[in-house]
Amino acid sequence: MDSNTDPLVIGQTTLSSRLFVGTGKYSSDSLISEVLKRSGAQVITVALRRMDFHSQVGNVTDYIPSGVQLLPNTSGARNAEEAVRIARLAKAAGCGNWIKIEVISDNKYLLPDGYETVKATEILAREGFVALPYISPDLMVAKRLVEAGAAAVMPLGAPIGTNRGLKTRELLRILIDEIPLPVIVDAGIGRPSHACEAMEMGAAACLLNTAIASAADPGLMAEAFGKAVSAGRQAYWAGLGGRQEYAQASSPLTGFLHE
Amino acid sequence: MDSNTDPLVIGQTTLSSRLFVGTGKYSSDSLISEVLKRSGAQVITVALRRMDFHSQVGNVTDYIPSGVQLLPNTSGARNAEEAVRIARLAKAAGCGNWIKIEVISDNKYLLPDGYETVKATEILAREGFVALPYISPDLMVAKRLVEAGAAAVMPLGAPIGTNRGLKTRELLRILIDEIPLPVIVDAGIGRPSHACEAMEMGAAACLLNTAIASAADPGLMAEAFGKAVSAGRQAYWAGLGGRQEYAQASSPLTGFLHE
Amino acid sequence: MDSNTDPLVIGQTTLSSRLFVGTGKYSSDSLISEVLKRSGAQVITVALRRMDFHSQVGNVTDYIPSGVQLLPNTSGARNAEEAVRIARLAKAAGCGNWIKIEVISDNKYLLPDGYETVKATEILAREGFVALPYISPDLMVAKRLVEAGAAAVMPLGAPIGTNRGLKTRELLRILIDEIPLPVIVDAGIGRPSHACEAMEMGAAACLLNTAIASAADPGLMAEAFGKAVSAGRQAYWAGLGGRQEYAQASSPLTGFLHE
Amino acid sequence: MDSNTDPLVIGQTTLSSRLFVGTGKYSSDSLISEVLKRSGAQVITVALRRMDFHSQVGNVTDYIPSGVQLLPNTSGARNAEEAVRIARLAKAAGCGNWIKIEVISDNKYLLPDGYETVKATEILAREGFVALPYISPDLMVAKRLVEAGAAAVMPLGAPIGTNRGLKTRELLRILIDEIPLPVIVDAGIGRPSHACEAMEMGAAACLLNTAIASAADPGLMAEAFGKAVSAGRQAYWAGLGGRQEYAQASSPLTGFLHE
Repeated sequence: MDSNTDPLVIGQTTLSSRLFVGTGKYSSDSLISEVLKRSGAQVITVALRRMDFHSQVGNVTDYIPSGVQLLPNTSGARNAEEAVRIARLAKAAGCGNWIKIEVISDNKYLLPDGYETVKATEILAREGFVALPYISPDLMVAKRLVEAGAAAVMPLGAPIGTNRGLKTRELLRILIDEIPLPVIVDAGIGRPSHACEAMEMGAAACLLNTAIASAADPGLMAEAFGKAVSAGRQAYWAGLGGRQEYAQASSPLTGFLHE
Repeated sequence: MDSNTDPLVIGQTTLSSRLFVGTGKYSSDSLISEVLKRSGAQVITVALRRMDFHSQVGNVTDYIPSGVQLLPNTSGARNAEEAVRIARLAKAAGCGNWIKIEVISDNKYLLPDGYETVKATEILAREGFVALPYISPDLMVAKRLVEAGAAAVMPLGAPIGTNRGLKTRELLRILIDEIPLPVIVDAGIGRPSHACEAMEMGAAACLLNTAIASAADPGLMAEAFGKAVSAGRQAYWAGLGGRQEYAQASSPLTGFLHE
Repeated sequence: MDSNTDPLVIGQTTLSSRLFVGTGKYSSDSLISEVLKRSGAQVITVALRRMDFHSQVGNVTDYIPSGVQLLPNTSGARNAEEAVRIARLAKAAGCGNWIKIEVISDNKYLLPDGYETVKATEILAREGFVALPYISPDLMVAKRLVEAGAAAVMPLGAPIGTNRGLKTRELLRILIDEIPLPVIVDAGIGRPSHACEAMEMGAAACLLNTAIASAADPGLMAEAFGKAVSAGRQAYWAGLGGRQEYAQASSPLTGFLHE
Repeated sequence: MDSNTDPLVIGQTTLSSRLFVGTGKYSSDSLISEVLKRSGAQVITVALRRMDFHSQVGNVTDYIPSGVQLLPNTSGARNAEEAVRIARLAKAAGCGNWIKIEVISDNKYLLPDGYETVKATEILAREGFVALPYISPDLMVAKRLVEAGAAAVMPLGAPIGTNRGLKTRELLRILIDEIPLPVIVDAGIGRPSHACEAMEMGAAACLLNTAIASAADPGLMAEAFGKAVSAGRQAYWAGLGGRQEYAQASSPLTGFLHE
């Protein structure tokens, strides 16, 4: 099992890395290319707002190496209509046809609106977008997104930027079991061990932003996440052993001196 | 930060890997060399009982590559005296002067006896052994082991062989804070995410046996653990971001369509 | 603070108990009156299917004492239309105007369908029902239910009948913070400590069925839940102390023998 | 099952309440009698230092109603010898023959010293004290205390005063399984739900101090803890249902409208 025999396919694209990264909160845009390089990530999400279509400098996309898939997001959209407009703008601006659909009207917890997200996904998938909707881990919303033509679903582990880990673990597990699309855990992951756990559970990929961007050394943290995601995926395939109630000796316990 | 600038020093030995592995429960001894190779582990623990000093074949040490530090353990010892005898036998048999001190008289949970472990450590450290005692994560026992001359302490995350993870997390954290020796988490780790978490907390290393040996594909699982331990150590140095109560947007949330 | 000064008001009804119970899975219907009596519960939910409008015997409502509020549920409904039909039937049959709206089309995890639930709530609230919708703990669905005229929201702690506890704790906390209606935790609670925790967090009430019905001694378990819910509510008002990182002595530690 | 048929017997004393309380950190000593009354606690621990043998006023024991068992503690003792001296002083001062043995030399986490605690217990039990040693939840230490003649063992759930809950849950469970003495959880319990959980697991009693004393309304919190401990004990006897992986309908799900 390696990236050749276990690729992640989304839309028409085959990826060997299962780590997606974001571009927000970095103290300097130049860190982004370091993060991509050290993490091995092949998908990067960018808020359209960050892309300056007029200016010559400072455009975050300048720092994205070729070979990395751009995933524009609809951050700022408060309903389906706005998300659709942002997606079309992104495509028109040459950002390609992938879109992370993010519809948020709650300013405190930044929780996504499943209802508006399904509506936007229906429209955008029909228009040929590779639609990756950001959702709460709700099975019925995820089922509607399958019908709507989503390419993957991106449930949250905890509210955006909280670094709290897989607080929705039980619901994520159900989505992974039941949804015939890649389940990409997005939001809430604060540590490599959290990402590793998501992958062990069978998540298809993880999207990381705050935990890397807010680390004292983002490049080193990016490398750590790259390894942790890969480790979790390998463990998923290697077949985790069951948990035991009682201890089971690894070494022969008796008989050495007692024969 | 890499293994050159962040080595683990135990006794006189400098290690670049922070994963230790065991030799128990493997369906075939030949798997052990694969596990060492794929995990990058440089320390391997062996029960003296497993070493056949007379027979020509089947000796587990045949499968241990040169360059890997042998860590014989006193598995089977039920008190300090027995542990001391086993340690001396191991040294006399050419197994070197490292010893994992394991004193267990509880047959159900296989929990170590701190009192006898301290006694054995005092004796063996005085005789020049590099003593690595296996303990419950008890601060006062660990302090006595520092005084007794231990080279590291090896607290359990959960009972041996249970794969339950860091169930003693709060007590491990205290040991890591307070004990001026490497803290090596030994027992209970069942998944790469568990090992990664221990390293993020500041553990110096992890010892793995059951979780690798009982995987459907031990070689692949060994590779996963190697990465997870390294990822956790890097995250420790990279500076984990704090947990937040409320969400914090990664992307600019407002203003795109609302200017 | 007691039930006189801290009543739970739902619709026009004032309740002194914050424990709701179900009627499913009991080995004998006669247990139900014992459960009501020993737990002090004042609200009981019944699937309409359980109510035999023709037969003279075995009707579960025979066992419900006067003074207990009946909460018929729409169990069996797979969409809004079916839920509305069941609710109207219940009212016509003399079950009153309270209705627990349960719309489930997922047969494995029995997770509710937020979209259909909102639709049914809009219709039934307009018709004068006291509507208590059962939901996943999704903030945006809960906000829509407020607008739709719900009298309370009933988010799940874990899938129905699993006894797993507050696995959706983080999301429940957000609902309790943000929703200006009673939040009644329904499903997943397996132990009195789980119900107590929900109440400490500020839940308005808990609905229990499986954990009581499947206990070896349901009457005793009902009594335990009654106390635990009351304890949790009192703790909520008494003001829980903060968690501390380090120990803080309760007793004077120094000076006794060291003056 | 009630307090008549399920008493807690320690030494020669039969208790109907399974809540023990402390006397530290109260803003006013007069609160203590309110706490005893509202919680129903029948055992109260007092640091000898708090007892003023000379002064006429302000002695905490003045506030302890008759019928409540006094449990002096050896708080301030840093080794076995000091604990023994304090215990003897307490007895000589008329405090009776119960003693909570607390030996702590760690000033940051206030973790007990198992080795010195065993020594003190041996001496004091031999002198006829009803010895209740405070310990880390270490099985081997607990086994030695059984041999030393302890009347109960008092393992910590988390460091004193932290309100963190049952962070040592796995180790407590082992003690409850293996030790043929009452296991009284002491330290770390911060909420009624924590105490309830300890009792559900089979703990014989809980000792609470900080969580009550530091509540905004200690009397109300005391009442909450009294109920929660009783609820947990009842649940233990009522037979907790098992946890399920998948949902299990409480109400009949199909057939209502689909026959």
